[in-house]
Amino acid sequence: MAHASYPLTTEQPYPRRQWWAAATATEVSRNLVARDILGERVLLYRKEDGTAVAVSGICPHRAFPLEKGRLVGDSVQCGYHGFTFGPDGACQRVPSQNGVPQHATLRRYPVVERGGVVWIWTGEESAADPALLPDLAAIGLDAPGWTVEIHPVATVEARYTLLIENLLDLSHVTFIHATTIPSGEKVAALPVTVEARSGGLTVARKAVGIPPNPLIKAQFPDQDALVDQEFDAQYMGPCLIRTGGTISDHASGKALGTQNFIHMITPAAPGRLHYFVATARDFGHDNPALGAMNLAMGTRIQPEDVDAISAIETVLRGDAPLPREVSARVDNGALQVRRLLEAQIRAEALAA
Amino acid sequence: MAHASYPLTTEQPYPRRQWWAAATATEVSRNLVARDILGERVLLYRKEDGTAVAVSGICPHRAFPLEKGRLVGDSVQCGYHGFTFGPDGACQRVPSQNGVPQHATLRRYPVVERGGVVWIWTGEESAADPALLPDLAAIGLDAPGWTVEIHPVATVEARYTLLIENLLDLSHVTFIHATTIPSGEKVAALPVTVEARSGGLTVARKAVGIPPNPLIKAQFPDQDALVDQEFDAQYMGPCLIRTGGTISDHASGKALGTQNFIHMITPAAPGRLHYFVATARDFGHDNPALGAMNLAMGTRIQPEDVDAISAIETVLRGDAPLPREVSARVDNGALQVRRLLEAQIRAEALAA
Amino acid sequence: MAHASYPLTTEQPYPRRQWWAAATATEVSRNLVARDILGERVLLYRKEDGTAVAVSGICPHRAFPLEKGRLVGDSVQCGYHGFTFGPDGACQRVPSQNGVPQHATLRRYPVVERGGVVWIWTGEESAADPALLPDLAAIGLDAPGWTVEIHPVATVEARYTLLIENLLDLSHVTFIHATTIPSGEKVAALPVTVEARSGGLTVARKAVGIPPNPLIKAQFPDQDALVDQEFDAQYMGPCLIRTGGTISDHASGKALGTQNFIHMITPAAPGRLHYFVATARDFGHDNPALGAMNLAMGTRIQPEDVDAISAIETVLRGDAPLPREVSARVDNGALQVRRLLEAQIRAEALAA
Repeated sequence: MAHASYPLTTEQPYPRRQWWAAATATEVSRNLVARDILGERVLLYRKEDGTAVAVSGICPHRAFPLEKGRLVGDSVQCGYHGFTFGPDGACQRVPSQNGVPQHATLRRYPVVERGGVVWIWTGEESAADPALLPDLAAIGLDAPGWTVEIHPVATVEARYTLLIENLLDLSHVTFIHATTIPSGEKVAALPVTVEARSGGLTVARKAVGIPPNPLIKAQFPDQDALVDQEFDAQYMGPCLIRTGGTISDHASGKALGTQNFIHMITPAAPGRLHYFVATARDFGHDNPALGAMNLAMGTRIQPEDVDAISAIETVLRGDAPLPREVSARVDNGALQVRRLLEAQIRAEALAA
Repeated sequence: MAHASYPLTTEQPYPRRQWWAAATATEVSRNLVARDILGERVLLYRKEDGTAVAVSGICPHRAFPLEKGRLVGDSVQCGYHGFTFGPDGACQRVPSQNGVPQHATLRRYPVVERGGVVWIWTGEESAADPALLPDLAAIGLDAPGWTVEIHPVATVEARYTLLIENLLDLSHVTFIHATTIPSGEKVAALPVTVEARSGGLTVARKAVGIPPNPLIKAQFPDQDALVDQEFDAQYMGPCLIRTGGTISDHASGKALGTQNFIHMITPAAPGRLHYFVATARDFGHDNPALGAMNLAMGTRIQPEDVDAISAIETVLRGDAPLPREVSARVDNGALQVRRLLEAQIRAEALAA
Repeated sequence: MAHASYPLTTEQPYPRRQWWAAATATEVSRNLVARDILGERVLLYRKEDGTAVAVSGICPHRAFPLEKGRLVGDSVQCGYHGFTFGPDGACQRVPSQNGVPQHATLRRYPVVERGGVVWIWTGEESAADPALLPDLAAIGLDAPGWTVEIHPVATVEARYTLLIENLLDLSHVTFIHATTIPSGEKVAALPVTVEARSGGLTVARKAVGIPPNPLIKAQFPDQDALVDQEFDAQYMGPCLIRTGGTISDHASGKALGTQNFIHMITPAAPGRLHYFVATARDFGHDNPALGAMNLAMGTRIQPEDVDAISAIETVLRGDAPLPREVSARVDNGALQVRRLLEAQIRAEALAA
């Protein structure tokens, strides 16, 4: 891979002292499931009381992948020679002997289940503070008064930073999503502001005084007058970007409602990512057609982004020489996020 | 490949001064066949008198794979420009000229055909001593009084040591083969003895005083009383492990018969192996149903082991960090075999 | 890839100050097409006036592959964020702003369209002299009095030098094409002369006084007497080799006509090539069956060569140790061409 860390200039491709979306809540069950996260193999399951568990997915006895084993109560039994580990990672039983070998332990990942998502902490266990999660309540993912849809996860052959860059430059909407996002063809021409907020950053666009398009009509059937529509891209950390925003009546400035698209990004490996999407709105709670519409839009829009960043990943992995990168003024926000991310990774390296 | 030589600590992954099963007797014919062995491309065929021949499979003229050529009498004619080589590897003819170039020679591998298997020697030709073959007569593969079945070969994406380790820790039978090996679910709990024998090593288990299961009933229809059953794993060198053993009447101790499973393991490349199996028994010679049963068991059991070691190979080749290896007391035999194998490889390096 | 530059002893696998066939004329249209050439991604299209254009196929903004964009007039618009580049490679427009960033330029490749083929120059633009193209008129590709067929391109997983070597040692015809090239079975036995000509080299064979085979009868229906047939292999540079030659009446020496096979070879990447073939004859212009016959022969013969060189590429990429190369006397021409090619590559390295 010729351009292994592009667009970052750091050696380590991702921060580890970080919460990441590991799975949607419905993916984690009494069936063992393995997922690569930050290049590690993580085993996910639920205890009999429903609590989600995340431990290392490789048996320390003979490196057998543990998802091929089975659950015995709250413990995982390896499918090869039967080594059995509790949800705390400690070896509880070796079938061929009494007692267990020293050091026969699985790494345990701290878990928080919130907003329909199972989050794991990939740094040292002692530093795992749920307060370091992005403020999910503020964006409607874990708050009263919001209706949420959790979309199915996509695993993509692309470094996670390509998805962060994608979401932070919404001028791509005009080209990639011209036919799938209503009024998308106009986004590239909107003026942009960049605002740093609480360790994060928002790239904001606003369409002002536009006639309500069919999607807005579906969301707010009584609105015939002109509206203002926000096209935010809010970086809340490497694990989460919010897009969307508030739609308001143009004349009065009164908010009609807020529709957020919550993009949860998890590095699977240096060149692969998991992409979780949730949609959250603070209006139309009794209208299930809006949720169905959001899910249907997701199945049309998400593949367009996946295709784009996979195509770039293929270019980056190839041996063809790359042109010297140029940026537009509109890339200012994305470039600031690159520096935030690099600073986070470098701070970890210094602390280690 | 992050863990290229695991579980060995040597650089060279396999010994070369060694006989290896190259093919079953029926695979070698008047049609050219190429097989990768120890990372080399070996061409196998029979002379007109039936003698098996093994030579290098790459033409020294322009690196064309010789199995795409054809046999002319006892010689191989390259399919590209017609360079022709005798069974001793010497170039005999170049169609475009009189005489042959110097050094136009194929490497020749010493061959012994024994027990329904074509064995080749991968060390220096002068050291190729058939006496260095494992004692095939002792295990029923090349001896009067035994009935033998030769199973079809499997080529597996796994380093050959994973298969050696698999066979030497039969506690896996309880988990991998619980439903396919009669009484297999009890193997992990049997006590184990380890006995060094003539440069090899036997990990022995014995089920004592068990009722004859359906397989034993099929093998010894007159036996209704309790039996003792051996579950040996006998390492006879890196190329061959015998499992199985003798079934005896529990009360009298009288042997009813011996059923051996003969596992012939040949490294194809650092991460790939050929797996040859033969079954040999010294009873029931006039009962062809027993042979059919052995072959049918093979088609069910062998894929379970192949799946297990391929899954480990995938883990080893991945970039995920591996946990520090732990072993059970029952692994003692397998760990001794690792050291035997490493010593064999190191001795070669010193002698070279 | 263990033998990355075989059979060359240079580090750089190909010369760059060179014209190469990039596409047949019919492949280049108002649809964007990308092709890997010398490890670079080249974008090909036609302007509205029909002129062929070749520019770099990777957007310098965010490395998006430009063939996924679209043509706007004579310009290419990137499919991701809409950066738009003219046929001279200069950035003309960035949708989100007025003006364009500095250095936002695509590399432009000089193009000549000749003989039904679009040729590009991969060296510095200032050195791109159409006079450095092989003399296409001399071999009937771009000359009055010749009838030409352009065959469909094949992209082959093999280093381009393997195809050069293949074409320069036509003794392979006897083995690879014995059934598809009339009288091919006799080629290996014909005496060979090697003649250096104008920076190139011709390996010549002539079948003398042979009865006209069915192909010759189809080409020259009135010829019943014995003929002489040339089997030339003329290296005119790394991009082009001519095979075939003149067929004459044996008794009088009078030429009946010339049938050339024009092989245009373009490195795609270190281990991959594009193979363009044209057939040209100076007789039978009013007999379309001869053109159809040439195209049909191509679809049978070309895959035989592709299979052969792909098989060698697989051997070269493998980890198996290669035998020390030996050559026949008939390889003299091919060995001289290796040295010509190495000298061309080394001269570039010295000049750089």
